[in-house]
Amino acid sequence: MTNTAETAETPAGHDASAETASDTADSTANAGGRGGRRGRGGRGSGREGRRAQRGGGGVQQLRYITRKVAPYEVLSEEGLETIEANADTILEEIGIEFRDDPEALEIWRQAGADVQGERVRLPRGMARKIIQDNAPRQFTQLARNPERSVEIGGNNTVFAPVYGPPFVRTLDEGRRYATLDDFQKIVKLAYMTPSLHHSGGTVCEPVDVPVNKRHLDMLYAHMRYSDKPFMGSVTAPERAEDTVEMAKILFGKETVEQNVVTISLINANSPMTFDATMLGALKVYARAGQACIITPFILAGAMAPVTIAGTLAQTLAESMAGMAFAQLVRPGAPVVFGSFASSISMQSGAPTFGTPEPALVLYGAAALARRLGVPFRSGGSLCGSKIPDAQAAYESANTLLPTVLAGVNFTLHSAGWVEGGLAASFEKLVMDADQLEMMHAMTNGVDLSENGQAMDAIREVGPGSHYLGASHTQANFETAFFRSKIADNNSFEQWESEGAQDAAQRANTLWKKRLAEYEAPALDPATDEALQDYVARTKASMADSFSS
Amino acid sequence: MTNTAETAETPAGHDASAETASDTADSTANAGGRGGRRGRGGRGSGREGRRAQRGGGGVQQLRYITRKVAPYEVLSEEGLETIEANADTILEEIGIEFRDDPEALEIWRQAGADVQGERVRLPRGMARKIIQDNAPRQFTQLARNPERSVEIGGNNTVFAPVYGPPFVRTLDEGRRYATLDDFQKIVKLAYMTPSLHHSGGTVCEPVDVPVNKRHLDMLYAHMRYSDKPFMGSVTAPERAEDTVEMAKILFGKETVEQNVVTISLINANSPMTFDATMLGALKVYARAGQACIITPFILAGAMAPVTIAGTLAQTLAESMAGMAFAQLVRPGAPVVFGSFASSISMQSGAPTFGTPEPALVLYGAAALARRLGVPFRSGGSLCGSKIPDAQAAYESANTLLPTVLAGVNFTLHSAGWVEGGLAASFEKLVMDADQLEMMHAMTNGVDLSENGQAMDAIREVGPGSHYLGASHTQANFETAFFRSKIADNNSFEQWESEGAQDAAQRANTLWKKRLAEYEAPALDPATDEALQDYVARTKASMADSFSS
Repeated sequence: MTNTAETAETPAGHDASAETASDTADSTANAGGRGGRRGRGGRGSGREGRRAQRGGGGVQQLRYITRKVAPYEVLSEEGLETIEANADTILEEIGIEFRDDPEALEIWRQAGADVQGERVRLPRGMARKIIQDNAPRQFTQLARNPERSVEIGGNNTVFAPVYGPPFVRTLDEGRRYATLDDFQKIVKLAYMTPSLHHSGGTVCEPVDVPVNKRHLDMLYAHMRYSDKPFMGSVTAPERAEDTVEMAKILFGKETVEQNVVTISLINANSPMTFDATMLGALKVYARAGQACIITPFILAGAMAPVTIAGTLAQTLAESMAGMAFAQLVRPGAPVVFGSFASSISMQSGAPTFGTPEPALVLYGAAALARRLGVPFRSGGSLCGSKIPDAQAAYESANTLLPTVLAGVNFTLHSAGWVEGGLAASFEKLVMDADQLEMMHAMTNGVDLSENGQAMDAIREVGPGSHYLGASHTQANFETAFFRSKIADNNSFEQWESEGAQDAAQRANTLWKKRLAEYEAPALDPATDEALQDYVARTKASMADSFSS
Repeated sequence: MTNTAETAETPAGHDASAETASDTADSTANAGGRGGRRGRGGRGSGREGRRAQRGGGGVQQLRYITRKVAPYEVLSEEGLETIEANADTILEEIGIEFRDDPEALEIWRQAGADVQGERVRLPRGMARKIIQDNAPRQFTQLARNPERSVEIGGNNTVFAPVYGPPFVRTLDEGRRYATLDDFQKIVKLAYMTPSLHHSGGTVCEPVDVPVNKRHLDMLYAHMRYSDKPFMGSVTAPERAEDTVEMAKILFGKETVEQNVVTISLINANSPMTFDATMLGALKVYARAGQACIITPFILAGAMAPVTIAGTLAQTLAESMAGMAFAQLVRPGAPVVFGSFASSISMQSGAPTFGTPEPALVLYGAAALARRLGVPFRSGGSLCGSKIPDAQAAYESANTLLPTVLAGVNFTLHSAGWVEGGLAASFEKLVMDADQLEMMHAMTNGVDLSENGQAMDAIREVGPGSHYLGASHTQANFETAFFRSKIADNNSFEQWESEGAQDAAQRANTLWKKRLAEYEAPALDPATDEALQDYVARTKASMADSFSS
């Protein structure tokens, strides 16, 4: 039941890097803005023309998705109201524990909550009101390359790679503990992957670096080897401080103070508990105006009831408590409603992925987030399979498609996750990324322009002929259909003569090619030096620790 | 572009078997009923309690799906109207060719169509009116075991196995031409598979039997080795006649005359053409009150424009022409709007599967069928991969989930399809069936009963504890979560110690186990003898042909 890495993300850290501040001058993002941001579209909508952008190594990068299709709904208005009422009942009757953090309890007390011991109970509607009066509906997370900045919320979907695995897996080496070298390779691969809009956070755990120092190396890797946005360290408040400090070197102090430059994963310790580590990191980021994803991490049957409606009510209660707390720490602090919900095997206790119940939770939670008016994080390409086989693909597709149809705004674990998150697979990373690319086409919906209707083509061709040579076909040749980089659609005979490879073998070739073609994005040498200096100085001030 | 088997379904045949007629007395199905069936719910809705039924070999069978979740829509009312108007323009201006069938042209002429040569042009709205005035919205297809009868249309989804492949593939033997023995094995496997509600038709091509005789063996196999509903032969009018005759032996003459006991696949020869073979079979079935699925078989870019909206308009026009023609042949003939649409690689011309564009066509066509008021066939577990690997699974999941969310009523190719339909994979059949089973849980939606809301469980457990031992968890233990029969969710160490198998290897074990446990459903010996006699007599009347 615990062999899932997101819970085990304790030893982690991330990179925030500091490019020239002038890059970010055109941003309308404002981490500190509160009511003013609610209801605004945010930047990005005028940028359709720049959808495809050149990236490192000549790879055409894709802008984050702005969905043109409606979200899929599985609950009626009445059903959603029932779950909201139940969440209020949880907050009012049962309450949430804020453990080992007297300051948090004092903050709640001053806000008017009922605080007894470490248990915080909220009057009905209080959390919702605090969030709706303060939290932004949508915000921009800056990247050091402004072309890579992402819009989180609204109709937008951002894909970030796998987070947390202590192991890596490749076809060549099998499964082994991850190292800093692996971490840097995954950052480089994500940078080279058009459909990964975000560099992510703990893309794997570099277990060869002391626990208390590795966040520095991870942060530096994201900053140096990518120019996409990245996540902050959450495993200790001082590591969150390091994240903000390094971000100030990369982006400039003023830019960090006025913008969201990092987003961090604050998991609730479900059921109905926040611990001091997470609360400590949350407070650092909220005070710095940096974004927090408040995620109840739930394996239903263990951390929540075995039912979908029960899991939804508890998820909403926990996430609202965390998001409201962030607003009390700093009104307007950007927050994201997070949901990580899977089920467990009722036989073995093992977590299961890609099953129907988590998909239904996902659709429901996304609708609850929309009603609350905050961005939503969930989903990914999750699977329990140890290897990138058919099980992995079925399960991942059964998570990813609901993720996109539900209207998830920030998608962690979009690529590379295997073995319940315990391992990052290089092959699966590029296989999943191929699927993410398809989601761009899918969310574009149906083109109903004159060219899309294609009546001239139908008239030109007529009965019994074919469209291959039609002028409309020729004119739309290049962009007509999604082209997979992994799928083999050749004839059986050609496939066989080329070695009868499976998808994982082709993915092995692809990730090696991408890494071979990798070119680091330019970074001002003075900034690079300052970052390296910060890492070296901070490391020198600490003894090595391998425990926490 | 042609390596897809559905087009190559030329040499085919199917089984209709004749059990005691009294089995079917409780059916409200009426193949000949016209306006009267429109708007009625049909039977089945009162049968929730019998959802899981015992089948052969002690396997718990699942009733066809009755969806409790809403269909997903990608087109607005206005968008759908645009496509409907374009379909009318195609029928009015361009017309449809009905080739080598003077009777068909005469039927159209008498109905008031503009017939010039073999080209039939219809005034705007004519096809729609003929269909809406006559075709049933929903109908029951009887199985010889009345517990297995299926309801086609409305909120129901029926899964049938792969159709048409000339090859089979197993892990043990690789890929080879299919035989009658394979055909019988797949029928038995489908019978033993809870989530396959239908025995299908040409589950593979038994190429060891002469083309002009194999439909008899296929029909007999469906009748003898399964008690689920099945499909008719369409490869020649006389084979359709054999289907009806054998059905009369199995079900009794009167039952066949008054009920739908077989459903058959009438493909349009897109673009905008029906050929004499398909028209001949259609006329036989329509006159016998048996169901026809009118399916434009489209690889967009070859048989239709490269755009989604263009493919939809042409699909609607072709399918409406075929369905209206069936109504002219026999008013009230049960018809299904079919859509098989995939895209092609614009580089090689090879068909591609599981890509975004066909999914968008699927959602759109399902909505058009709902507006027309007829059942809809599409989707399945389609893939281009040669083997049951990650490519196969991603592509199949990316077809199946849209199939179910779109609200498809009859799903051919639900399990076993690989290599663009050129091969039936035994391993993939059981892997796909596992996914089909998940769709039952998914389409049940969110349980909002008191037990579903689980507030007592949340109260019982409270902050920082766990739900494993909670009374609510214990009470819902058995049914809480979907249990995969293929996925391995054990720890890495256990999986490794058990041989580090991939999903395909586990599927290999499962299909062999199921075949070993197979027990044929009882069949009245006199009926069996009559069927065998019909097959023998009919075969004796023909010389062998291996060509068409």
